Amino acid sequence: MSLQENTIGLAKDEEISARDPEAAARALALVQQLIEEGEEAEDRKDLKDREAIRLDLRDTLSELHPADVAYILEALPLDERLIVWDCVRSSQDGEILVEVNEAVRETLIDAMNKDELVDAVEKLGTDEIADLVEDLPPDVVAEVQEGLSHEERAQLRAAMSYPEDSVGARMDFDIVSIQQDVTLDVVLRYLRRLKKLPDHTDQVFVVDRDERLMGTLPVDRILTHAPDQLVKNVMVADVLTLSPLEDVGDAASAFERYDLVSAPVINESGRLVGRLTVNEVVDIIREESDEEAFGAVGLDDDQDLFESIWSSAKARWIWLGINLFTAFFASRVISAFDGTIEKVVALAALMPIVAGIAGNSGNQTLTLLVRSLATGQITESNQLDVIKKEVLVALINGFIWGIIAGLFAWALYYNSPDGKLLGLTMFMAMMLNMLMGAVVAILVPLTLKKLGRDPALGGSVLLTFITDSGGFFIFLALATYIFSV
Amino acid sequence: MSLQENTIGLAKDEEISARDPEAAARALALVQQLIEEGEEAEDRKDLKDREAIRLDLRDTLSELHPADVAYILEALPLDERLIVWDCVRSSQDGEILVEVNEAVRETLIDAMNKDELVDAVEKLGTDEIADLVEDLPPDVVAEVQEGLSHEERAQLRAAMSYPEDSVGARMDFDIVSIQQDVTLDVVLRYLRRLKKLPDHTDQVFVVDRDERLMGTLPVDRILTHAPDQLVKNVMVADVLTLSPLEDVGDAASAFERYDLVSAPVINESGRLVGRLTVNEVVDIIREESDEEAFGAVGLDDDQDLFESIWSSAKARWIWLGINLFTAFFASRVISAFDGTIEKVVALAALMPIVAGIAGNSGNQTLTLLVRSLATGQITESNQLDVIKKEVLVALINGFIWGIIAGLFAWALYYNSPDGKLLGLTMFMAMMLNMLMGAVVAILVPLTLKKLGRDPALGGSVLLTFITDSGGFFIFLALATYIFSV
Repeated sequence: MSLQENTIGLAKDEEISARDPEAAARALALVQQLIEEGEEAEDRKDLKDREAIRLDLRDTLSELHPADVAYILEALPLDERLIVWDCVRSSQDGEILVEVNEAVRETLIDAMNKDELVDAVEKLGTDEIADLVEDLPPDVVAEVQEGLSHEERAQLRAAMSYPEDSVGARMDFDIVSIQQDVTLDVVLRYLRRLKKLPDHTDQVFVVDRDERLMGTLPVDRILTHAPDQLVKNVMVADVLTLSPLEDVGDAASAFERYDLVSAPVINESGRLVGRLTVNEVVDIIREESDEEAFGAVGLDDDQDLFESIWSSAKARWIWLGINLFTAFFASRVISAFDGTIEKVVALAALMPIVAGIAGNSGNQTLTLLVRSLATGQITESNQLDVIKKEVLVALINGFIWGIIAGLFAWALYYNSPDGKLLGLTMFMAMMLNMLMGAVVAILVPLTLKKLGRDPALGGSVLLTFITDSGGFFIFLALATYIFSV
Repeated sequence: MSLQENTIGLAKDEEISARDPEAAARALALVQQLIEEGEEAEDRKDLKDREAIRLDLRDTLSELHPADVAYILEALPLDERLIVWDCVRSSQDGEILVEVNEAVRETLIDAMNKDELVDAVEKLGTDEIADLVEDLPPDVVAEVQEGLSHEERAQLRAAMSYPEDSVGARMDFDIVSIQQDVTLDVVLRYLRRLKKLPDHTDQVFVVDRDERLMGTLPVDRILTHAPDQLVKNVMVADVLTLSPLEDVGDAASAFERYDLVSAPVINESGRLVGRLTVNEVVDIIREESDEEAFGAVGLDDDQDLFESIWSSAKARWIWLGINLFTAFFASRVISAFDGTIEKVVALAALMPIVAGIAGNSGNQTLTLLVRSLATGQITESNQLDVIKKEVLVALINGFIWGIIAGLFAWALYYNSPDGKLLGLTMFMAMMLNMLMGAVVAILVPLTLKKLGRDPALGGSVLLTFITDSGGFFIFLALATYIFSV
């Protein structure tokens, strides 16, 4: 098949020739093998062989997509990563720097001198340069800026001026725009003169003389309509537009909902200033999901898997510190009931159950709330219905699982004179603590949302704090009362 | 601005006219207001007014994008949802059923009779019908199938035959394919005859007479190259191809990495059988993220926010049951050391700290491993490096936080004769338990991956089980030994 012949022709090794989703993993294995062979040659002091292997590595890397090289760099320990980085063709440096995650990018930039960095960065588009700026040394940024045109410098300044999670920070400037009073034939001739369209051009933008957006002309309409038709008769006027200050998460939801490939970004006066494309949206959704998963355990979402051991250890301290603090607080609550535990030592064995189950049940509610807030399914107008429902669910489950846990506790201590009272304490504490967990799980994200903060922020820590400390308190205070009556 | 005039002209109410990411939320608020007004009119027995409001609602809904209607249906309690569903124009029914999530879809289908369902479904494409089939009554499916052409029936069978998470189950059949020996001008004339191209057509597929894929012709090349050029000289031969049996998650990673809009799906003999598009990939990534978040707390990712209270309560039982079981097991571990706790009651207050911190620290490692496995950053060849690094990090953090917790414990019980021994027990138990947590957090996902299972599966439950039960055991056993010496 010509398709495969062609790709085999391109790639050095059969193993990585067929382009499919596993190609990058195969390339990684091949690169690791070459590095290992190179190290063996070096151990044998066979410098000629080592050089041959290095050349092989260079060839292999030069045939890979920059995104695949980025993937390989992220998957290698630091020393091997720098060997690969050294072998990458300098013409690809810039694109690869854009592709790798921030933690890995820093290690690569550290290994480059000023001239290499300027060479790599000045080939990029202004929106890509804007992404890199904060990781680059100031003298590199200054030199790159000197090489830009007046317009590009203005774009760079604009891109850097928008907040991190805004559409403005993620849009690009690769816009093809046309006037509405020309025929499709004129548009076609214009496009042909451009030689190449920007990636993800599913529509060209129709603007007036002041660059205000009048509508868009989808590429498929250019292809399927007669060439003598006027743009204004073929264009779509009802398009989704974004503002540069809009939250990228909301923009991503719109892309998801309306199945968009690109969307125009316009400023307050209706002027077209950029566009957001679906590849950026895919990255945004992935980042949101990473942020959520890593954030839930107090980690930065920009992880270098092979960060130094010491920095990895340190990266986890804040989280461990917060949790140690809340755990010590819960411990103080328990020790306030020393006397009761001394009398009925079974309480010590039973109390973690009350705390744990309420925490788990609360986390279910919390996850549901945070997710539904993120997708916009909970609004001002229906949140009361949601609160009612979740509280009722907590009441029902608190009652049912309170009874189950109570019966279990009674069964476990059936032969003890305290058995019945332990069961009763267990039942009441479970019910109360599960209800309390639900209330916290509902109120924390809704309150954060109301305050304009991220509803996922710290909810889980606070929830565990309350269901632990509160759970121990409820259980032991109830026990103190019940066993003293 | 003509853009806004046009949209205002389209939509009934100014409030929802401008198309922006918040349009759907505004439409939801408007719909809720109309429903409320309708109910008030009904309370007043003003049936004429109620009818007028219903008509308003109908108008409002008919102007919305099906995805917006789907969003509104998902955000409404069941009774209001059915009022809206009743007012939706029947020509949109099918598309909306495809858009809503499964849990909500069931409630909508339950409210439709057979004829309505057949009408709604038969307008859809075969790939969309395939998505709905499992939720439809068998007699509806049978009738819809009768209305399909021979080719469509084959496509439907094919789409239904692939496993849920395979590319085959998510691909569509809206393919535009051409031969390689014609000129671009011929291609242009062919496309014009089609009148409309399928959504997300960023490339047309070049096939030979046996429909085997030879390459693709990106739409921008059609636009920018001279019309007299031959397809085979302009087409791209080195394209990423997918197999229908490929995992959709891997395909999504490839879209992410190479910034694709569409990719051809070919069978073993190289024949083009369908294509995967980026809008489907966006949905896949979102679903993965939902599955992960909901799965971590034992919930189904297809949530109906307004499911009946009883079903919501039940949906959480398995998870609560599992957790109650592991909590009772941990409780048994504690009660095995009754004697020691009776002697040194401070142990009861300190033991949850050991269990909790190791659980939290283990969860950090687990999250890192699961995520890195999902993105393919951990491979057979580098997993040993990762294991070494994570164990070392756990040793370092175990040592540091063991000392901190040990000193704290000593300080808390400084005036007690047991103070020093409690600090020592705390230090040793923290270190051991954090190490154990890390080992579990590393081994569980790697083992699951090796067995070909989802690495995220149940790791968190098992981890908490081990760090709780194991933590109590380590701490109390150490205490029993230390205090008896």
